[in-house]
Amino acid sequence: MNRPKLSSEELRELETLGMLCRGDILKMTTVAQSGHPGGSMSSIDIYLTVYKFANIDPQNPFSPERDRVVISHGHTSPGVYSALGRLGFFDIEEVIAGFRHPGSIFEGHITRGIPGVEWTTGNLGQGLSAGVGMALAAKLSKRDYHVFTLMSDAEQAKGQVAEARRTAAKYKLDNLTVVIDYNDAQISGRASDTMPVNIKGDYEADGWKVMEVNGHDYAELSAALYQAVQEDVPVAIIAHTIMGKGVSFMEDDVSFHGKPLDLESCRRALAELGVNDDLEFFIERRKKMPITREKLIPFFEEKAINIGEPKFYLPHEKTDNRSAFGKALADLAKLNKGISPIAVIDCDLKPSTKTAEFEKIWPENFIQIGVQEHNAATLAGSMSVSGVLTFFTDFGVFGIDETYNQQRLNDINKTNLKVVVTHVGLDVGEDGKTHHCLDYIGALKNFYGFKLIVPADPNQTDRAVRYAANEKGNFVIALGRSKINPISGPDGKPFFGEGYEFEYGKVDIIRTGKDATIVATGQMVSEAVKAADMLKSEGIEITVLGVSCPLHASFEHVKDFLMGKVLTVEDHNVKSGLAAILAEYFTSEGFLPEKFVKVGVSDYSVSGSKDFLYRLAGLDAESIAKRVREF
Amino acid sequence: MNRPKLSSEELRELETLGMLCRGDILKMTTVAQSGHPGGSMSSIDIYLTVYKFANIDPQNPFSPERDRVVISHGHTSPGVYSALGRLGFFDIEEVIAGFRHPGSIFEGHITRGIPGVEWTTGNLGQGLSAGVGMALAAKLSKRDYHVFTLMSDAEQAKGQVAEARRTAAKYKLDNLTVVIDYNDAQISGRASDTMPVNIKGDYEADGWKVMEVNGHDYAELSAALYQAVQEDVPVAIIAHTIMGKGVSFMEDDVSFHGKPLDLESCRRALAELGVNDDLEFFIERRKKMPITREKLIPFFEEKAINIGEPKFYLPHEKTDNRSAFGKALADLAKLNKGISPIAVIDCDLKPSTKTAEFEKIWPENFIQIGVQEHNAATLAGSMSVSGVLTFFTDFGVFGIDETYNQQRLNDINKTNLKVVVTHVGLDVGEDGKTHHCLDYIGALKNFYGFKLIVPADPNQTDRAVRYAANEKGNFVIALGRSKINPISGPDGKPFFGEGYEFEYGKVDIIRTGKDATIVATGQMVSEAVKAADMLKSEGIEITVLGVSCPLHASFEHVKDFLMGKVLTVEDHNVKSGLAAILAEYFTSEGFLPEKFVKVGVSDYSVSGSKDFLYRLAGLDAESIAKRVREF
Repeated sequence: MNRPKLSSEELRELETLGMLCRGDILKMTTVAQSGHPGGSMSSIDIYLTVYKFANIDPQNPFSPERDRVVISHGHTSPGVYSALGRLGFFDIEEVIAGFRHPGSIFEGHITRGIPGVEWTTGNLGQGLSAGVGMALAAKLSKRDYHVFTLMSDAEQAKGQVAEARRTAAKYKLDNLTVVIDYNDAQISGRASDTMPVNIKGDYEADGWKVMEVNGHDYAELSAALYQAVQEDVPVAIIAHTIMGKGVSFMEDDVSFHGKPLDLESCRRALAELGVNDDLEFFIERRKKMPITREKLIPFFEEKAINIGEPKFYLPHEKTDNRSAFGKALADLAKLNKGISPIAVIDCDLKPSTKTAEFEKIWPENFIQIGVQEHNAATLAGSMSVSGVLTFFTDFGVFGIDETYNQQRLNDINKTNLKVVVTHVGLDVGEDGKTHHCLDYIGALKNFYGFKLIVPADPNQTDRAVRYAANEKGNFVIALGRSKINPISGPDGKPFFGEGYEFEYGKVDIIRTGKDATIVATGQMVSEAVKAADMLKSEGIEITVLGVSCPLHASFEHVKDFLMGKVLTVEDHNVKSGLAAILAEYFTSEGFLPEKFVKVGVSDYSVSGSKDFLYRLAGLDAESIAKRVREF
Repeated sequence: MNRPKLSSEELRELETLGMLCRGDILKMTTVAQSGHPGGSMSSIDIYLTVYKFANIDPQNPFSPERDRVVISHGHTSPGVYSALGRLGFFDIEEVIAGFRHPGSIFEGHITRGIPGVEWTTGNLGQGLSAGVGMALAAKLSKRDYHVFTLMSDAEQAKGQVAEARRTAAKYKLDNLTVVIDYNDAQISGRASDTMPVNIKGDYEADGWKVMEVNGHDYAELSAALYQAVQEDVPVAIIAHTIMGKGVSFMEDDVSFHGKPLDLESCRRALAELGVNDDLEFFIERRKKMPITREKLIPFFEEKAINIGEPKFYLPHEKTDNRSAFGKALADLAKLNKGISPIAVIDCDLKPSTKTAEFEKIWPENFIQIGVQEHNAATLAGSMSVSGVLTFFTDFGVFGIDETYNQQRLNDINKTNLKVVVTHVGLDVGEDGKTHHCLDYIGALKNFYGFKLIVPADPNQTDRAVRYAANEKGNFVIALGRSKINPISGPDGKPFFGEGYEFEYGKVDIIRTGKDATIVATGQMVSEAVKAADMLKSEGIEITVLGVSCPLHASFEHVKDFLMGKVLTVEDHNVKSGLAAILAEYFTSEGFLPEKFVKVGVSDYSVSGSKDFLYRLAGLDAESIAKRVREF
């Protein structure tokens, strides 16, 4: 249907589908007694036209060459499901019976993994960033698919949309088209009253071309899409629509935003639409559904990556972990350039996050988003499932705290993102409390999918980066700022040197001693080793355990070390990090150590050098040693 | 200085101050060997002009009638401190010696509580929302102060700025003026390359008036400020400046963004400025500083609130906690209208968060922000310290997850915000995983200041809302969606009825029995009580403990109940909520219960009714009873 003008057969087909889909929308929401019929009926003609127009084969819906349709206002799932069902992506009857039932994949908000659905949305204002990520991925992987992002009017107010819009203009994403369902109705009333947005003015100010059409006119919509695809700038089509369109007593009534029709009204509406009333059939079928089902496993395109050979750092080579990351990343760039796309997403921090070398080697794959972290996190996520190995690099406070919900949604989307955050903990230089990310463990513990690596030194950092590049799924690698000496074993050789292989979850036994055990994570391992070596000269022998993967640490093989006097040390909120994880382990295993002391950060800190702040928090080697002596 | 034209004396004074301040900026950053001189020197003439122009008395800098100056690019702290120091707000010598030293209040990013500093910033793009909150507060408390928000160019890209801009236009905040330091330089190079922003176009599209001036010309700046204050719409002044302005070898060199001069270069620069070189004095003075100091306690204006009388719900009156909140809130509105301002900040969810009754009673204090949660959270925070008792109401996923960092920054700002989130846990209706806030405990545990209340039933909700309204500081009250029967004691009377008084941190003993103890929070208390009553009829007697304040629960007086078989039940991520807090308690106290079983949510869930989802997660009364029987 990718032509300037629809034939009269095509037009008739769309009109027929439009009625059927409206019937489906009403049926599924009434059967479920839940859902959003109003917006679904204002968007449905857009959905039908776009899915018909786009190059997606219902028989092969995950082809890497397919056009992408991202629907940002995910609560209009009844509209999306009905369009996809009627176009042959799946059985529409399964949707009508199962919508919003735990036994069905057709959830209240559209979910990545369902054929035709590219992104799980529901929290408004995220979809354009996801679309931008996919459009950028097309450029980087030299594919010529087009990305259509469909949005509501109310979510145009969301700041992340402005960020995404600006990014699309900067990167001249002519393979991106937005269609906005402008029904001027949201929960609180008229969109234009609730929070006035100058949609046309905003898009134009940011360098987009804007068209306006009647969103219920297939011919107009179709012609606009055709024109948009030809343009060499991103295009927004404002589609004027009517909430509840198609059923007289629903039209323009905002109360149908999130409320289904009751059975009686639904029958009336179906009659008005001329759609078969088979509600009883679906009501009965729903009753018989089991409440459990297999999990939906979303696809993603993966490419083989050459991760190269480890780079070794000797104990006297003082290096910061972030530079070790930067070097490993540059190595990946050299090895994979022209073979398998890798991208770095930066938010104006490249000198600090050490990604400048990557940029030098592979400038076109270094994506500069500026101070727009929400957008950066989401587009990085969507890019990561579009055939590009994606690193999102930022300070901890931005890559985890500021983008907490974007990372949660990446997690829900089961993306393949590698987030590398630097300047975590108090180790940020003198920037002070607004820049102290003290929750890189505690924040991610709230999610279910992310893996977290907090390397102890440059050697482990190098290995962790190469490891994560080669593994499926979402990772955060959390790094401090300061230079440290690579950790050596008792023999003086690098502990994470030749022969060391990174194993996710493994706890490293760095020193052994009978008098006490220090459990540490990240750069605290280094301080703990210093403390241990100090104490050894006083005749006190302690064990040092390095926990590089706090969220999934397997303590089983070090259990014996955890029976006696145990001290945890973390440059992290002491309530929600390593100590909490160990407490959880003890209560699950049903034993307590003889003594258990937790050292960490117990309040917002201040500005100061790392050395001062560590001393204030009791995190320096001398303070740690003192705590051990007190045992 | 609030006049259209500066006198020649004023002009000369500013010129002198400009040189002195530039000297201060260079000295403090060189002495500290850390900090951001470049932007400080491009902004300094703006700071001097605005602080002179604004109605703030250095001798009485916290007067409720004062104009507010919010500086959004908080890393230009050297500029801010030097301007305030030279204008008599504090001793500039203390700053030069102590800047970024842990023993000094003059941190790397400006901090609320320092005279003249209204908001702690440092994470870019937040300041305009804070300014909007204060300007709105002026309207609600019928004060005629003006708010000046000073920003950088790079942060114009941040979406939250667009949200704030739109809000200012909607509410016709003619008492708000923005000045943008347009030095066209940021870490990655030219701002206009890093992420192009059509600043003028964006502000104008959103309904602002825009002026452009030379940001180093006091007369132009001053005239523009005068004109801006007269306008009846919010005004943005784009001030064209030069990074590093005033020192020949620093001008327009982006490398001085975040790098101080070395001692030698600093001496040269001071000579060029004609400023006294007393670097040695400050270097020596700094060396003698202690690394600890008293905490800075920021002021806020508090007003007495009439919290009225408790509303009682009888055990048969099935009510949702959110409606109980809505009724308590309406009661506060009735009692305080015209006496002490209360505001509700909504993001297009009033029918669900039950704030519509408040709006009916006090429409002008019901602030509708639309789908702009980041902006809403920040402006609510700043409003809460400006003489308005402020409730920010939203779904859990938006009021906690989406705005996680905004709440962290409110916490750092020690605001007085009351966040009421509804639809927490799996109890959201059929919306599915994007809408399941499963981390309302785990997220807030990462902060240090927020208090959290998760009431068990409508009675406790009513009491908690009135309690929080009357207490200083930040609170989150977390509520589910479903209607429940108010909890009754063993005597059948309401447990949280007459005679009950809410006490923060107290664990409620709702049932007692020797066979096992269930520890529950929020609506799970209700399910636990049902399970207990079920089991009682089978001859199994259990204790039910209700934890309404999981972050600060004092388990001491219920310790005896925690020795035996203990089951925690929470509609929350099982790894980061109530069970984790109890594990922490056990390890701190040095004892373990005989058995410890944790029931909670162990993965992202699906769409479905609360009853289905609770059954799937083992959170319904029947499943809980089953787990107890297994003991």
